[in-house]
Amino acid sequence: IESKDDANILDLLNDYHHADIAEILEETDINNATYVIKLLDSEKTSEVLMELDEDTREKILDTLSAKEIAEEIGELDTDDAVDMISELSDDRQLLVINHIEDQEHAQHIKDLLRYDDNIAGSLMAKELVKVNENWTVTRCVKEMRAQAEEVTRVHSIYVVDDNQKLIGRLSLKDLLIASPRAHISEVYIPKVDYVYDSEDVEEVANIMQKYDLEAIPVVDKNHILLGRITIDDIVDVIREEAEKDYQLAAGITRDVEADDSIWKLTIARLPWLLIGMFGGLGAASIINSFSGAMGDYIILLSFVPLIQATAGNVGVQSSAIVVQGLANNTMDSNLFRQLFKEFTLGLVNGLAIALIALCVTHFAFGTPYKVSITIGLALIAVIVMAALIGTFIPIILDKRGIDPAVATGPFITTSNDVFGILIYFVIAKAMLGF
Amino acid sequence: IESKDDANILDLLNDYHHADIAEILEETDINNATYVIKLLDSEKTSEVLMELDEDTREKILDTLSAKEIAEEIGELDTDDAVDMISELSDDRQLLVINHIEDQEHAQHIKDLLRYDDNIAGSLMAKELVKVNENWTVTRCVKEMRAQAEEVTRVHSIYVVDDNQKLIGRLSLKDLLIASPRAHISEVYIPKVDYVYDSEDVEEVANIMQKYDLEAIPVVDKNHILLGRITIDDIVDVIREEAEKDYQLAAGITRDVEADDSIWKLTIARLPWLLIGMFGGLGAASIINSFSGAMGDYIILLSFVPLIQATAGNVGVQSSAIVVQGLANNTMDSNLFRQLFKEFTLGLVNGLAIALIALCVTHFAFGTPYKVSITIGLALIAVIVMAALIGTFIPIILDKRGIDPAVATGPFITTSNDVFGILIYFVIAKAMLGF
Repeated sequence: IESKDDANILDLLNDYHHADIAEILEETDINNATYVIKLLDSEKTSEVLMELDEDTREKILDTLSAKEIAEEIGELDTDDAVDMISELSDDRQLLVINHIEDQEHAQHIKDLLRYDDNIAGSLMAKELVKVNENWTVTRCVKEMRAQAEEVTRVHSIYVVDDNQKLIGRLSLKDLLIASPRAHISEVYIPKVDYVYDSEDVEEVANIMQKYDLEAIPVVDKNHILLGRITIDDIVDVIREEAEKDYQLAAGITRDVEADDSIWKLTIARLPWLLIGMFGGLGAASIINSFSGAMGDYIILLSFVPLIQATAGNVGVQSSAIVVQGLANNTMDSNLFRQLFKEFTLGLVNGLAIALIALCVTHFAFGTPYKVSITIGLALIAVIVMAALIGTFIPIILDKRGIDPAVATGPFITTSNDVFGILIYFVIAKAMLGF
Repeated sequence: IESKDDANILDLLNDYHHADIAEILEETDINNATYVIKLLDSEKTSEVLMELDEDTREKILDTLSAKEIAEEIGELDTDDAVDMISELSDDRQLLVINHIEDQEHAQHIKDLLRYDDNIAGSLMAKELVKVNENWTVTRCVKEMRAQAEEVTRVHSIYVVDDNQKLIGRLSLKDLLIASPRAHISEVYIPKVDYVYDSEDVEEVANIMQKYDLEAIPVVDKNHILLGRITIDDIVDVIREEAEKDYQLAAGITRDVEADDSIWKLTIARLPWLLIGMFGGLGAASIINSFSGAMGDYIILLSFVPLIQATAGNVGVQSSAIVVQGLANNTMDSNLFRQLFKEFTLGLVNGLAIALIALCVTHFAFGTPYKVSITIGLALIAVIVMAALIGTFIPIILDKRGIDPAVATGPFITTSNDVFGILIYFVIAKAMLGF
């Protein structure tokens, strides 16, 4: 179909939602995708471009001129426009902005480009419906109609005073009911949630979720209304945050996907493997220093993997619970109470595991009972230790303002491996007296 | 403050948002919380109850009579009402429903209670604004005002035919602009996204995210409009899904939180520790069967933790990437291409790790070069194997309709541990000839 029958292609694609077109384009090769993009009218193109994944979008943008990109960006809401433009090089960003026809739109984009990625300002769109407290309902409806043309979805109407300070909000419902001659100052709701442009995006996500908001106005430190953040941007923040935590727990530095290049994937994964490797080498030297004197008890070495696997698993479990508890605020804020709980939990799990391991090694493997008891005791000690370390480290990191998610995964596994093996041999030495 | 000065407490709490009141109540003891709940008027109480965490809510509901609960539920939207009522025992559910004064509301709740937890119907609210295609714009505005009283937030106006079949939607914006005498059939938008009540909730979340929807109508198999799902419920689905995956990766069966009881936490964690334990015992018997013939090469045992840690880390990394890729649809759907990529990636990472380990063991530990080379080769083989297993298993599980997230965490770590140690000794035997 891709061979030049333009009218047909357009006919075919016109019925599709832009998210679906984006999906189709990702499957085809870049030349065809660019061809189709140039064919579509620019309102549709801009929407399709926004839905493409970053890699494909980058490739297509490379083939377009600054003027063509400026046309697409002119069609987008400011928040989406900024997302797209920020992927270009600095020089090209300037070129594209200079080509945008609507001066106000260009200025808004320049304003938004200044914000860092992780603060509220970066998620904000300049498009919103705002009314002055001194207007009448009739004037308000008229102005709103004009403003609503530019705004994809009206959530709330924000009320400002003469200095553009945010003083309240107005719901469409209230406006439907109010008398046409009333002044806005008589009907608006003075209670309005808002965030500052410098607020952390995760905090914004928490606020919007807690109060079930679908849009929230953004103000500067003088309470001047700057823009608004909508729930769809927050959904992305929540998802990205969850993915980041998940990847850290799995030992992958953030921001890679299954279809990234081998080089990018190596950079994300190798550092964690190195941590694990040095941990393994540390464990090797511990084993070496004990095994010389071990004599008949060389069988102890066979159970090193058991100790290690248990220590690693318990550590990851404890730290994951703490990391999630910290993220959700569902955790007891008292460090000692939390540690005591993990201690008890470790003791319960440890006793269960130790008992089973003791029976299996003694009766199935024929290990001498003294060695089996040593293994059991070591398992209890190691599980309790791993649970405590797994709880302690993320809480401490969080108190120091470091993302506790880095403490999960290979980092906690490795330190627990090494400590666990050390504890095992110390207990064995004491019990068996070698 | 909690000692009987009712007027003061009410004054104090009236200024707070219900989410904040819920947070305060969770901190105080149950008796005080119940006391405060009974003090507040029922509109506010019902909102506060919805925001409480499940455990606290359950305890408070236990102290209320069926009639009191019915009053609270009468104030809630149907979707929230169903969430709350479904936590009660079956007998109590009936009692409470019989006490609800508004018969229609009670019938809606009964309808919604029939849906399973994981299908679209369970997230649906019956409250929505719908208009008939044959109405005029004037009549429509009048009817909407009456309907809007009941609906917390109007997202879209749904258009139905005389048989209550969903045929399109109407935006508030269009309605503001339309001539008062026009018929709805002339101004409505016939293209409308919808889901069936039997659709999987994750699929609903995907559709709403893909098309950036803030509400979606739900229809039955005959396209009769049943209700709508709003984005705030979907945000919860996304967050829960992410948490579930994260906990599975960490070896915790779903649905526990840091403040749960020790017994609940043990149930969630012990099974995974048992998997790890049996893996460890398996590894022990492999080591036993080789170590007898090992003679001078007993030093090989020291490096078992190194092999094991590396195999575990690589396996978790690979499986996490695949699990996320499957969830996001960002992954190459061709199994062999994906496996080949992981193979190459494993080779690159393996060579790097092996080279470092070879140098460290030979020069720093003084291991004979033959043993160091054995360790290096084993590391490469183990990394490649772990990467392939970590990729293969989740893809296979996904193809068979099993949630691939179960394959991450202890499950993959344990199988890679055991295979890794086996490969290590097989290579060592071949290289060193014992």
